[in-house]
Amino acid sequence: MSVTAPKGFVAAGGSAGIKANDAPDVAVVATADGRAVPCGGVFTSNLAIAAPVQVSRTHLAASKGKAAGVVLTSGNANAATGGAGREAAERVCAVVAGGVGASTEEILICQTGLIGIPFPIETVEPRLAAIVGAKASGPDAGAAAARAIMTTDTVPKEVVIAGQGFTVGGMAKGAAMLAPNMATMLAVLTTDAAVDAATLQKALHEAVGASFNAMTVDGCTSTNDTVLVLASGLAEVPAPSAFTAALTEACVSLAEQMVADAEGATKVAHITVRGATTDEAAHVAARKVADSMLVQCSLFGGDPYWGRIVSELGSAGTPFDPDRVAVAYGGTVVCAAGVAAPHDAAAVAAHMAGRHIQIDCDLGLGTGQAVVLGTDLGYGYIDENKTTS
Amino acid sequence: MSVTAPKGFVAAGGSAGIKANDAPDVAVVATADGRAVPCGGVFTSNLAIAAPVQVSRTHLAASKGKAAGVVLTSGNANAATGGAGREAAERVCAVVAGGVGASTEEILICQTGLIGIPFPIETVEPRLAAIVGAKASGPDAGAAAARAIMTTDTVPKEVVIAGQGFTVGGMAKGAAMLAPNMATMLAVLTTDAAVDAATLQKALHEAVGASFNAMTVDGCTSTNDTVLVLASGLAEVPAPSAFTAALTEACVSLAEQMVADAEGATKVAHITVRGATTDEAAHVAARKVADSMLVQCSLFGGDPYWGRIVSELGSAGTPFDPDRVAVAYGGTVVCAAGVAAPHDAAAVAAHMAGRHIQIDCDLGLGTGQAVVLGTDLGYGYIDENKTTS
Repeated sequence: MSVTAPKGFVAAGGSAGIKANDAPDVAVVATADGRAVPCGGVFTSNLAIAAPVQVSRTHLAASKGKAAGVVLTSGNANAATGGAGREAAERVCAVVAGGVGASTEEILICQTGLIGIPFPIETVEPRLAAIVGAKASGPDAGAAAARAIMTTDTVPKEVVIAGQGFTVGGMAKGAAMLAPNMATMLAVLTTDAAVDAATLQKALHEAVGASFNAMTVDGCTSTNDTVLVLASGLAEVPAPSAFTAALTEACVSLAEQMVADAEGATKVAHITVRGATTDEAAHVAARKVADSMLVQCSLFGGDPYWGRIVSELGSAGTPFDPDRVAVAYGGTVVCAAGVAAPHDAAAVAAHMAGRHIQIDCDLGLGTGQAVVLGTDLGYGYIDENKTTS
Repeated sequence: MSVTAPKGFVAAGGSAGIKANDAPDVAVVATADGRAVPCGGVFTSNLAIAAPVQVSRTHLAASKGKAAGVVLTSGNANAATGGAGREAAERVCAVVAGGVGASTEEILICQTGLIGIPFPIETVEPRLAAIVGAKASGPDAGAAAARAIMTTDTVPKEVVIAGQGFTVGGMAKGAAMLAPNMATMLAVLTTDAAVDAATLQKALHEAVGASFNAMTVDGCTSTNDTVLVLASGLAEVPAPSAFTAALTEACVSLAEQMVADAEGATKVAHITVRGATTDEAAHVAARKVADSMLVQCSLFGGDPYWGRIVSELGSAGTPFDPDRVAVAYGGTVVCAAGVAAPHDAAAVAAHMAGRHIQIDCDLGLGTGQAVVLGTDLGYGYIDENKTTS
């Protein structure tokens, strides 16, 4: 169950020969009747923007915020591929449009994988129609789509949130490069709530800010990051706040699944910064801590070395007073008023030994606060990333 | 040879009980006659500023840019130690001042080690006078000082540059946390050139910009970073440009020694960005590439995955055109006009297998350029940093 949970959506997953050994590498999510429906999108801020992001943005603008379907491919990012890459992305959309019963500009495209390798459109194109043709409703179809977008992911990421009179479903992929503005990740959400494109886009921005933009693994921002949400309108008109809440809950679930599956991670860090001058400053400071390779190494070793946390808070570029900062691990205060605080070392050690580590920082300056999810840095991350071949 | 090479300086190194097993942990560099001489200083931008940085800044301001000596301790950063830490730093300066024959405010202090642990002043203070009393001229004294400031360094870092009618000497420590504004590092330089404090400060800023501020290991900025230069005035009045050139050469040598000795590093990356809109933009983009954990993992694996470099250049927050970027490894162009370029893969593989990796990026936008030194990310970095105890 996931993207096919809300009424009015079908999905499919299959292999088009991008990955070796016919591993699943293409997913399609579309409206069951081929109708273009309101669609919201958030895209990478990386200026080395991949072809599919350029094409999706163009399509979404041309269709005035509507889409009938999304095609996602894995195994090749189609980034740093120039005009040939954009043409390949358009051709993929065109074939999918034919199968869905929509126009090409009503199909959006997401791609993920290695950068800089020409997209094998001649191999892929002839195999697309059969994949699209197999689209179906029901949980198996949603699960097949979620599996087909995995790259270094070890598990598929799916979510269903039951709202008041509507449902939100979603799937995502992403493991490394989860930051700083959005995880290197693809996420497609669906809902049967009756909302217009503007409402959808506003809700998506809020949900992304509280989820995908509040997590980090290595501080890298991908060329391909994309989050899309389609609304079939077959269920009720929701209260805007209830809809935003459900969409946020879905995005937070997907984000947590991604951090937990981050490349080589053995720990999930929940980093809270309070007492900042503004929420924005708190977010920047929390992200600085989460992105710190030294802090991440400490987490890997289970070492409660709060000095590194204070050092990162002090170099985040946000207001900081060395005599006011406090730090706690798992609720046990280890630093207060900027200096070491007497504490129960055994309690801290026990907390650090677990998989989830809670780090609470208080800057003592104001009421701004934020939470960022991070990971540790262990041998596994290096093993995953030292070679691509 | 190093800080004692220029005329008019003495040095000493010894143990004051900060480190276990009486390992060397205190160094002193001073004028031979106790005279306060022109002094320039550059300090960390981290707002979690350590006690010694606060004290040195205060002293340098009170003495109007003059100093008679510098005391450096290793094994405890005296950071996040509050008012007690500042008092401890003042007491260290006072004892050293007595031994040098200067006033307390004419002594500067640098400290490095773990953050957040009260400085053991009661242990250290009684042992300081004997260390200062052993100060001497000549190469052995300079070498003893350079050894006493090492923490995770595996080799001492020393340099002597013979200028036209003057000499510049220096020593430094620093291995991890070399960035982003200045390496987590301590460096003390001496010269016998006859220059005033204003000239010295200007030359130091320029030298630091081209050396310590152009290298990075993990993007972390320390609480204690300090670079100091003292000028005895016993040699000739140099041409300002010749003096700046010699000071820069000394700083670049120390910076290269630090990157080469970076924690767990197996590679040194020389990253050049050309064709940026400005030199500053080139520097920011080059640093983004150098700081990237994904790029660093590729370097560790010897994998010429230029897609990650393009992705970092695109997310540096500086102007970028995905259709203009070019990347070369060791002079072999692997990406041109934003897409893969046919190239001699064997030549690239041979280059990647070496210890020094040259990465040249051309943004194709303007004439701005910069060079940043970086390292790879391997198991050794994690081993060094996963625990402090």
